[in-house]
Amino acid sequence: MKKKIGIFGSTGSVGEQSLEIIDKYPDKFELVFITGHSNFSKLAHQVKKFKPKHVCISNTSLYKDLQNLISDVNILSGQEGMNSLCELNVDIILNSIAGYKGLSISTNILKNGVNLALSNKESLVQAGSILTKISNNNNAKIIPVDSEHSALWQCLVGEDISNINKLILTGSGGPFRTLDINKFSKITKEKALKHPNWSMGNKITIDSATMMNKGFEVIEAHWLFNLDYKIIDIIIHPESIIHSMVEYIDGSVKAQMSSPTMRIPIQYAFSYPDRYLHDDVSFDFKKYNNLTFEDVDYEKFKCIKFAYDAGKLGGTYPTALNVSNDIAVDMFLNDIIRFVDIQNVIDDVLNKHQNINNPEISDIEYATKLTEEYLINKYKLK
Amino acid sequence: MKKKIGIFGSTGSVGEQSLEIIDKYPDKFELVFITGHSNFSKLAHQVKKFKPKHVCISNTSLYKDLQNLISDVNILSGQEGMNSLCELNVDIILNSIAGYKGLSISTNILKNGVNLALSNKESLVQAGSILTKISNNNNAKIIPVDSEHSALWQCLVGEDISNINKLILTGSGGPFRTLDINKFSKITKEKALKHPNWSMGNKITIDSATMMNKGFEVIEAHWLFNLDYKIIDIIIHPESIIHSMVEYIDGSVKAQMSSPTMRIPIQYAFSYPDRYLHDDVSFDFKKYNNLTFEDVDYEKFKCIKFAYDAGKLGGTYPTALNVSNDIAVDMFLNDIIRFVDIQNVIDDVLNKHQNINNPEISDIEYATKLTEEYLINKYKLK
Repeated sequence: MKKKIGIFGSTGSVGEQSLEIIDKYPDKFELVFITGHSNFSKLAHQVKKFKPKHVCISNTSLYKDLQNLISDVNILSGQEGMNSLCELNVDIILNSIAGYKGLSISTNILKNGVNLALSNKESLVQAGSILTKISNNNNAKIIPVDSEHSALWQCLVGEDISNINKLILTGSGGPFRTLDINKFSKITKEKALKHPNWSMGNKITIDSATMMNKGFEVIEAHWLFNLDYKIIDIIIHPESIIHSMVEYIDGSVKAQMSSPTMRIPIQYAFSYPDRYLHDDVSFDFKKYNNLTFEDVDYEKFKCIKFAYDAGKLGGTYPTALNVSNDIAVDMFLNDIIRFVDIQNVIDDVLNKHQNINNPEISDIEYATKLTEEYLINKYKLK
Repeated sequence: MKKKIGIFGSTGSVGEQSLEIIDKYPDKFELVFITGHSNFSKLAHQVKKFKPKHVCISNTSLYKDLQNLISDVNILSGQEGMNSLCELNVDIILNSIAGYKGLSISTNILKNGVNLALSNKESLVQAGSILTKISNNNNAKIIPVDSEHSALWQCLVGEDISNINKLILTGSGGPFRTLDINKFSKITKEKALKHPNWSMGNKITIDSATMMNKGFEVIEAHWLFNLDYKIIDIIIHPESIIHSMVEYIDGSVKAQMSSPTMRIPIQYAFSYPDRYLHDDVSFDFKKYNNLTFEDVDYEKFKCIKFAYDAGKLGGTYPTALNVSNDIAVDMFLNDIIRFVDIQNVIDDVLNKHQNINNPEISDIEYATKLTEEYLINKYKLK
């Protein structure tokens, strides 16, 4: 039987690749719906090419523009349209909406008992305790899509979770791994947007440059695998070939590796527990003939420390972390602050944060609002 | 319930380490018997320290010497003693007898329906078809002990064997990896006995230097995992940290790694599917911070090609390969031939070999005898 799949955020990088994978295995997968926020022409193009039953544009003002371009598909719009898609009878929904706005979609998917392939890591960062509770109560799995968490998941297949000694997340170290800490104040937007190994959206590229992305992944791993922060480590692996590792209590380490493509983790999220043949499979040992490891420089990349701290403190701290990072990155991309100020903004927000323990969604929304207001006032943002 | 374990060849390197592992987990394992060939004083020492129920010395002339040193243990000797141990009610028997003489013990263990932890790879090289048939008929597993095959086994846990694209055996390349092929004729015994990463017995150290050991491992992998030779590859990995890898059809590669110790694969052979905590577990990324890969030089290491050829031809070819290698290595260690002649001896034997297809044990013994006689006559060996 074919797996029915829906895609939130199909016009983004992960969304686009997931459509190609679904299209490649027509006897395995059936595309039920796709959604986008503002790029209605790309969305229309995807409707024509991949023929989903439903399409939704979350920006309602673009409904007509989309409608003018396509036919033979159920066209929805806005939050209401998005929510109704979560209620469809599908096997897996990929949430690849960027930023913390993806949270409500993640909760809706799980509440409807549908397996959630999670590319939107901000959902888990902010509301890990809530999402895992909904996941357990509704017998709906949270499936990793990030290459690092997919690697951990693959290394854990068939193994007993109680035999884990350590999860070891690998990180490339980003474009400023070897840059002297004294030169961080001179980092330009152009340099920060140039990732050495991966081609991704602007937000996640900056998160890689500050290594906040790796910090988020620590929190994500904590929730996905239900493990204590003290056994989640990071190692710098500049080549981004080993995507992560699991060390077991007997000293054996399993590593998952591949050329740096998101195709493999996305495909595995859909094919698990099976694997499907891909033409382009052979690992190139000539090309990737030298794999290196380095310790993390926590002085240079304070965001990682902030993420560990916020994760361990729990409550609404991870929300303050994520929202302040979202806004700080946006300010940097709009030339309002320097690269080095991103971590200062976050540090300031975390220091002032009034924690709410065991938060409900409303508490997370409240903490989000307070953090936004604080930064909007402080930096006089529009 | 404790696993009852017996050890053939307890005075060797793998045997000694297996005793330490059994001793470390008294609530998990129970030592039933140990055996040795000639080192009766070490065997007596092991009896006193590890307190097995039975001990056997295969060299019958040393029975009295052993008996004089120990008490409170059932003392056996010779082939008859060895065979009777195979009939005991145990869970796993480790066969770490060196060379092709281990074959009859391997068959006896499996015939009695006991799981065989196989360190004696020559058994599988010579009689893979026979051993796997006995294994299947008697519902007795063949458990890998070699670090490479344990790595493959670990990477395959929970995965579907039909999703394998390639098994990738890693090899250090031995002490002559970087030596120019023109200097191979000058290789001395002292240099050949110096392995860069592992401390092992003389025979296997020379097999590593010629890389015949890696060739044997290809044949062993073929039988252990029931896979075609064309999907079993070798890659040179001089650091011996990644012990082997499995590439899946979707392009994902799983690698198993650890510091170079036989403790982990031996322990896993006994603890599988569980893993037991060891004090000394953390992988040292500072020490092993650079992992490299190179292609195999099949011109320099012809033994690998011979092994692939003999494996693919099947029948008694692997016996001719193994017996001629055994004798050639012995001749080299006794200064009868040069290092570079080892492969010439094997090449000569394989070229002259009269194959017997679908061999029985008697055919393998016959091929063994013919090969031995041929080389004894040719080189006037005693």
